[in-house]
Amino acid sequence: MNVKNNISNTIYLDYNATTPLEDEVLETITDALKNTWGNPSSSYPEGEKAKATITTARKQVARSINAQSSDIVFTSGGTEANNWVIATAIEHFERTQVKSQHQGEHRLKPHIVTTTIEHDAVTLPLINLKDKGEIDVTFVPVDKECRCVTVDDIVNAILPNTCLVTIMMANNETGVIMPIKEISEKISAMESESLRPLIHTDAAQALGKILVDVEDLGVDYLTLVGHKFYGPRIGALYVRGLGEGGAPLYPLFFGGAQERNYRPGTENTPMIAGLGKAAMIANDDLKSISEHMREIRDYLEKRLLAEFGDSKVKLNCSLAPRLPNTSSVSFIGQNMEGYKVLQNIKGFVCSTGSACHSNECKPSQVLLNFHVPFDIATNTIRLSTGRSTTKEDIDAVVKELKDVISSLSEIAI
Amino acid sequence: MNVKNNISNTIYLDYNATTPLEDEVLETITDALKNTWGNPSSSYPEGEKAKATITTARKQVARSINAQSSDIVFTSGGTEANNWVIATAIEHFERTQVKSQHQGEHRLKPHIVTTTIEHDAVTLPLINLKDKGEIDVTFVPVDKECRCVTVDDIVNAILPNTCLVTIMMANNETGVIMPIKEISEKISAMESESLRPLIHTDAAQALGKILVDVEDLGVDYLTLVGHKFYGPRIGALYVRGLGEGGAPLYPLFFGGAQERNYRPGTENTPMIAGLGKAAMIANDDLKSISEHMREIRDYLEKRLLAEFGDSKVKLNCSLAPRLPNTSSVSFIGQNMEGYKVLQNIKGFVCSTGSACHSNECKPSQVLLNFHVPFDIATNTIRLSTGRSTTKEDIDAVVKELKDVISSLSEIAI
Repeated sequence: MNVKNNISNTIYLDYNATTPLEDEVLETITDALKNTWGNPSSSYPEGEKAKATITTARKQVARSINAQSSDIVFTSGGTEANNWVIATAIEHFERTQVKSQHQGEHRLKPHIVTTTIEHDAVTLPLINLKDKGEIDVTFVPVDKECRCVTVDDIVNAILPNTCLVTIMMANNETGVIMPIKEISEKISAMESESLRPLIHTDAAQALGKILVDVEDLGVDYLTLVGHKFYGPRIGALYVRGLGEGGAPLYPLFFGGAQERNYRPGTENTPMIAGLGKAAMIANDDLKSISEHMREIRDYLEKRLLAEFGDSKVKLNCSLAPRLPNTSSVSFIGQNMEGYKVLQNIKGFVCSTGSACHSNECKPSQVLLNFHVPFDIATNTIRLSTGRSTTKEDIDAVVKELKDVISSLSEIAI
Repeated sequence: MNVKNNISNTIYLDYNATTPLEDEVLETITDALKNTWGNPSSSYPEGEKAKATITTARKQVARSINAQSSDIVFTSGGTEANNWVIATAIEHFERTQVKSQHQGEHRLKPHIVTTTIEHDAVTLPLINLKDKGEIDVTFVPVDKECRCVTVDDIVNAILPNTCLVTIMMANNETGVIMPIKEISEKISAMESESLRPLIHTDAAQALGKILVDVEDLGVDYLTLVGHKFYGPRIGALYVRGLGEGGAPLYPLFFGGAQERNYRPGTENTPMIAGLGKAAMIANDDLKSISEHMREIRDYLEKRLLAEFGDSKVKLNCSLAPRLPNTSSVSFIGQNMEGYKVLQNIKGFVCSTGSACHSNECKPSQVLLNFHVPFDIATNTIRLSTGRSTTKEDIDAVVKELKDVISSLSEIAI
């Protein structure tokens, strides 16, 4: 847990964008690159060693979210996993509908329930399919009071043709944690198992920061993304009871028999090994990691309020249940646009919103959808702390922010 | 070029299944894992460094196949690349047909031409789509005389609704090289550019063994697979004139804006860096690599013929143009099944066919489709040499084969 920024001399406060590798993860990957290069499908020692490495990693990943090994499929990343769940739910709906001759001759269009604050890797595939006329989508808004989606709003959006409810576990920009468990419980109670919509959560930002327990959450699918928890640039998809009568999964690709035919292609053994190790650390050390992040993030926010006062600085969505490491901070006043603040900062790095939109000057649509007013959203920077961020780092960050905000406000006058 | 088997004490002769990492590639990946972990979409130094690394790798990959950088998209592997080309060609056909109101009200089904000896990552997506009634496919057989597909057979299979011709550059089991250039020339000459089918070749087995030049080949798409040329477990897809009015490419996934929106998802920087380096080496050192592989493979075959005689050993498809490193070898007689031979071998490893089918006892369908008789196909082992295989290795391999074949033939009597 002692990973510092070794690229620039700046303080890195953008751990929600990506993380460096934990030392043990780096060692695991490097060792596998050197010594576990056999093809896992080969039936001699080189292959068997690679297969065993993948088996170990699958157990580690499963254990980190309280799942069965057989429920885990490795993917190239979160984007693939999210797109895959959506494609699967639609295909399952089509197949089930054909079987049950639902509504006689009239075929219903599959409907998906999601929120207005999802990552693009959920929002954009849904919009694409909607635009092509293949699905209907309800984008449930965030409740203005609690700054979170409500269980009732989600459940009320479900229609007889709803095949999937997909809601992120925690938002990448505000850190707000969604009531996935309560949503699953309500959905499971409302209809018989065979008719209820499938439930997916993108836990990209959650693992390694808060407890991610698929049994507790009650979801059918869960997306994991290695590089958000000090692991490599691949991902995994949890599928409840995969291959054992649980949630369905239809392959996106066809080819070799890897991953029980669900995900063909020679396995990326070193990255998979690293994902397993990273998941293990994130799980084993969750309490201390999480407490440290929260302590530092809370210290940051306390210092900001102390230095700027609550008329000059706003902490967005800070009353909602949040990730322990995320702070969405807005400076009030003219000439305080988030991108402008960042242009003037030399000693630390962070972002205005998600890395995917790092070059945009306009305010984040996600923040607007969290009911952050336009002016405040425009003036927002996201600070996300990591395992090795210190109070000294925060002191330096707050000091520089004070200087920059002060000089920007002088220019404005 | 001095990579030896560091897993077991055996001689590795299955380089068509996978390869270890070249030392420089390992260094490149390890360095990027440590020092280039920033999110390439971030607009501060950590991100810019990662972006620059990807740009360098893209140039290296492009140069290795005589392409433009902008024609390269990184993928999770060859399976994704092959499935993607097929999906793109079908979508392009549908869109073009709608536009041109082809055949009035009657919509034609897209048709794809391929061969009977493709890798599963081409064959199985085609069969899946055919079974679903979405496409028609012609599987062109190998010519019995030349043990290769002929240009005329491919061209004669093309129909007015053919949207794609997909043929591997070199076969993984026999090493036979397909006449891709001649096929492209004939297709380009037969119809106007806008109507001709798109042309794809899976060059997984070719790069690093023979010259792969997209200009010379005249293809629209080409699949590259890192772990076949001492690189990492990712791939790349070449798309002629991508984004500049060339061949079409429709995203499989939607999400972030990575890879110009063609392939969203945070880039796997270390693996991409390694792919670039591996492609660079494969290209720069092609002549010496290729000559070495050929010398050793030819030595192997000469020694096998000398020890066993041409009545006891058959070299499958050896008169066709072949990869310099591949030898498909069959031992004639009772009790000589390939899997049985391999069970008795202790000093070296190879396979009966592709790694994807390593646990099967029945003869390879690909070999049967190369017109290798059933008994001979059953008795086949594939030996594929690598950059560091030596004549001493081959002497030891031939010696052990002699002992094993001798003892198996005694049991048979």
